[in-house]
Amino acid sequence: MTIVDDLKQALGDIVLTGTQIGERHRSDASLTGRELPKAVIRPTSSGEIATALRLCNENGQTVVVQGGLTGLAGGANAGKDAVVISLERYTGIEEIDPQAGTMTVRAGTPLEVAQRAAEDAGFLLPIDLGARGSCQIGGNLATNAGGIRVLRYGVTRDNVLGLEAVLADGTIISSLNKMIKNNTGYDLRQFFIGSEGTLGVITRAVLRLRPLPAGRLTALCALESYDDLVAFLTRCQRRLPGLSAFEAMWENYFRFNAEAEKLKFFDEIPPFAVIVEQDLLGDASERDGFEAFLGEALEDGIIADALIAQSEKESRSFWSVREGHAMDSQLPALVNLDVSLPIGDIGRFAAECGAALSQRFPAAHVSFFGHVADSNLHIAFSEPDSDADTPHIVDGIVYEIVRRYKGSISAEHGIGTLKRDFLDHSRSPAELELMHRIKRALDPNGILNPGKVI
Amino acid sequence: MTIVDDLKQALGDIVLTGTQIGERHRSDASLTGRELPKAVIRPTSSGEIATALRLCNENGQTVVVQGGLTGLAGGANAGKDAVVISLERYTGIEEIDPQAGTMTVRAGTPLEVAQRAAEDAGFLLPIDLGARGSCQIGGNLATNAGGIRVLRYGVTRDNVLGLEAVLADGTIISSLNKMIKNNTGYDLRQFFIGSEGTLGVITRAVLRLRPLPAGRLTALCALESYDDLVAFLTRCQRRLPGLSAFEAMWENYFRFNAEAEKLKFFDEIPPFAVIVEQDLLGDASERDGFEAFLGEALEDGIIADALIAQSEKESRSFWSVREGHAMDSQLPALVNLDVSLPIGDIGRFAAECGAALSQRFPAAHVSFFGHVADSNLHIAFSEPDSDADTPHIVDGIVYEIVRRYKGSISAEHGIGTLKRDFLDHSRSPAELELMHRIKRALDPNGILNPGKVI
Ligand SMILES: Cc1cc2nc3c(=O)[nH]c(=O)nc-3n(C[C@H](O)[C@H](O)[C@H](O)COP(=O)(O)OP(=O)(O)OC[C@H]3O[C@@H](n4cnc5c(N)ncnc54)[C@H](O)[C@@H]3O)c2cc1C
Ligand SMILES: Cc1cc2nc3c(=O)[nH]c(=O)nc-3n(C[C@H](O)[C@H](O)[C@H](O)COP(=O)(O)OP(=O)(O)OC[C@H]3O[C@@H](n4cnc5c(N)ncnc54)[C@H](O)[C@@H]3O)c2cc1C
Repeated sequence: MTIVDDLKQALGDIVLTGTQIGERHRSDASLTGRELPKAVIRPTSSGEIATALRLCNENGQTVVVQGGLTGLAGGANAGKDAVVISLERYTGIEEIDPQAGTMTVRAGTPLEVAQRAAEDAGFLLPIDLGARGSCQIGGNLATNAGGIRVLRYGVTRDNVLGLEAVLADGTIISSLNKMIKNNTGYDLRQFFIGSEGTLGVITRAVLRLRPLPAGRLTALCALESYDDLVAFLTRCQRRLPGLSAFEAMWENYFRFNAEAEKLKFFDEIPPFAVIVEQDLLGDASERDGFEAFLGEALEDGIIADALIAQSEKESRSFWSVREGHAMDSQLPALVNLDVSLPIGDIGRFAAECGAALSQRFPAAHVSFFGHVADSNLHIAFSEPDSDADTPHIVDGIVYEIVRRYKGSISAEHGIGTLKRDFLDHSRSPAELELMHRIKRALDPNGILNPGKVI
Repeated sequence: MTIVDDLKQALGDIVLTGTQIGERHRSDASLTGRELPKAVIRPTSSGEIATALRLCNENGQTVVVQGGLTGLAGGANAGKDAVVISLERYTGIEEIDPQAGTMTVRAGTPLEVAQRAAEDAGFLLPIDLGARGSCQIGGNLATNAGGIRVLRYGVTRDNVLGLEAVLADGTIISSLNKMIKNNTGYDLRQFFIGSEGTLGVITRAVLRLRPLPAGRLTALCALESYDDLVAFLTRCQRRLPGLSAFEAMWENYFRFNAEAEKLKFFDEIPPFAVIVEQDLLGDASERDGFEAFLGEALEDGIIADALIAQSEKESRSFWSVREGHAMDSQLPALVNLDVSLPIGDIGRFAAECGAALSQRFPAAHVSFFGHVADSNLHIAFSEPDSDADTPHIVDGIVYEIVRRYKGSISAEHGIGTLKRDFLDHSRSPAELELMHRIKRALDPNGILNPGKVI
């Protein structure tokens, strides 16, 4: 009997093979996965996941976990020799505890479904990213997703109180803690969060909920220099208690997307544009305070211009420029790099990086944008004459500069397969050796997401 | 040659033995340590720590790390067969980066020294606890200390961006990252934070700084029931953006300490008293807003009375009741238990726990207080006729109820030696087995803090 036969015998028709396997199981959103896996298991309980892993582990069968497949690092790509465990049917909110302010949720639940359930109960689930409709809570945890509310609410790791995961050998580790403080032995949650499916399969989680803000105030500001931008950020952090987003766009990123969306905000395209957003906390005077704050920043010359959104529609128009969906359709072979650097260095880094890329690829579009406040910068790169090697050359140029700035080659998208060769740009040999030690301790047969991350 | 000779030869006079060893190395603040260690090493560099650990590891010599010795769980007690590595001379702030908002600090630096350095640079280091004058940054990280600002700024874990640690075999793991987002491989910081010196010696850290608030507003409120207290907490969290402390006192805790301090705040001692504190963010209207907010809560009957501190002195008088220093001197054999529970259950838990303790020890003082907002409850217990077994009996009674409420036997003080026997009240066999696996992977010879935590 093959391992697939074993799995079918133990688990029945949740094990798909051959033509039963959908095309989507080939690749995540990086579109770099080429092959279909040898089987796809679609469990609806932690017990089924434990059984599947135990059998695979006994047989040395490699396993790749697939969540919503919105990852950008190739982490969920399986290849033809692996068995896929897909969480797509292990969905649902198990409990919302309004007094503890927690939600217990199954790993396969799409982020947006969990967000809505929280809102219906009068809470905010602050994890939020563009892929919210498809990505899953389990994938968010496995990649320690960042997103647009990190400034106020932290990364995914900061919003997880409890976790259940299954180890490679099928052991269920259930730490579904609801408490904010719990120092009882090692914090096992931390081993699974951000490990991109290489140390265990995340099956359930207790997430921390926050009070739902009464609304939001949004402004689009024009600035003259990166130094001004850092000064403005500092001031926003000191003075706007509800500050929940601070999204920066460099000149040509803003120009490209504003023009693509046919939107004109300022007389001239400024060197830097920033979206500032603050959660409303229910006090009528907040809008006046926000206006006064921006007025003062204008007077002091820290910002050159500012528009406050007068409607939900206007706020969405600001965000549409930042989200830059037009780039996906209009720029060929678009590459989105995701690095992080000490905030004070991001201005110089971007200048240096832009110059290096333009020198090597004179015809390329290169532009910068990012969350900045949490040290994160994204780079949009598109070369009309791109070939198969281009992304790798771009990575090499950018990550070499990142290394010199002591930055990180992945702020939020993770390592997966695509960035594995560059991990030593952000990590020392001793760090890498320790990662391998941990991998061997938790997955001695190396069956989980082999070749990913490390 | 003995291992101590080896250490002396390699490290010189930083290795103390015999009468050179100070009395303080016997025990942490739990006062349960009885013996002096066979040697105390006082390194001033990570390299010396690496050398010491390498030699000890090769010789199977056990090592106990001592920070400021303010721990309450016996974690830093060495016993006569261990070698102590004391961080007391590895002190100093290496860098404050105002643009990144970070501080790089050596592990032996006392918390208060680091707090002052941050303030001098215009920042807040939000880690804060009563032991601030003596506890060290390394100890705070090793215990993942909580404290009084968790509500707004999180536990120690949430304020650590980078970390350097030395493994049992002497490998230096240097991850002195300054970035808020960094998803490059496993997050190695997390392995050392909260592991109480059993997985490595923390040598340096990059801490996250926050804007320094312009001041604080403090109120002392009287409440009729625990349900009101939860409703009031929810309202504070929704409406007070700068909320930085919410400290609850049950009736007899408040009575004991107010009387001991000769302070009278309300006509009658209320069933519950709460200190609410909010950081001032620089806006002149904040005080009015705070008053209006409390006025409304009074009108709605959620709180029964409220006093707003009119001076720093008055605010300190509120806090003196909460800190309860009088208990240490006036109550014999005081035991301070530190548990955490889902917020909604804390009221019922306290009632049940108080009844069980009073039944077993009719003459004992039993009172409750705690941070509550972060699910943390402290229990003060003092039995006039206490003997050596009493603390263990108390632990047994309390932790059994904790188990039934699915709570945690240690919210913030850690496990150390004192609570190790009760770890299975909060952790399953599978969780404990995984902790052992990790311990074996990082410290295969078991030399680091043996017998602690697990
Ligand atoms: C339009 C768009 C916008 C995006 N914006 C952001 C952003 O702002 N911030 C950000 O951080 N990312 C962003 N991403 C990337 C991506 O959405 C996140 O990484 C997301 O968290 C992945 O979730 P997923 O369920 O799709 O995971 P998948 O892509 O299916 O998997 C990602 C990795 O996690 C593993 N995994 C998945 N589920 C589990 C599980 N249950 N247990 C163990 N391992 C598992 C997989 O093996 C793989 O290694 C964006 C992507 C798109 C397409
Ligand atoms: C008055 C008072 C108030 C307190 N209030 C609080 C509170 O509000 N919240 C709270 O959480 N705790 C509180 N505590 C407990 C204690 O202060 C904390 O646990 C503190 O973090 C311990 O720091 P330390 O340097 O004294 O560590 P120590 O007591 O020296 O050691 C504690 C543990 O950490 C290990 N350790 C120390 N340094 C290192 C290092 N560099 N590397 C690796 N391991 C190390 C030790 O081996 C030991 O296991 C209080 C204690 C007192 C006396």
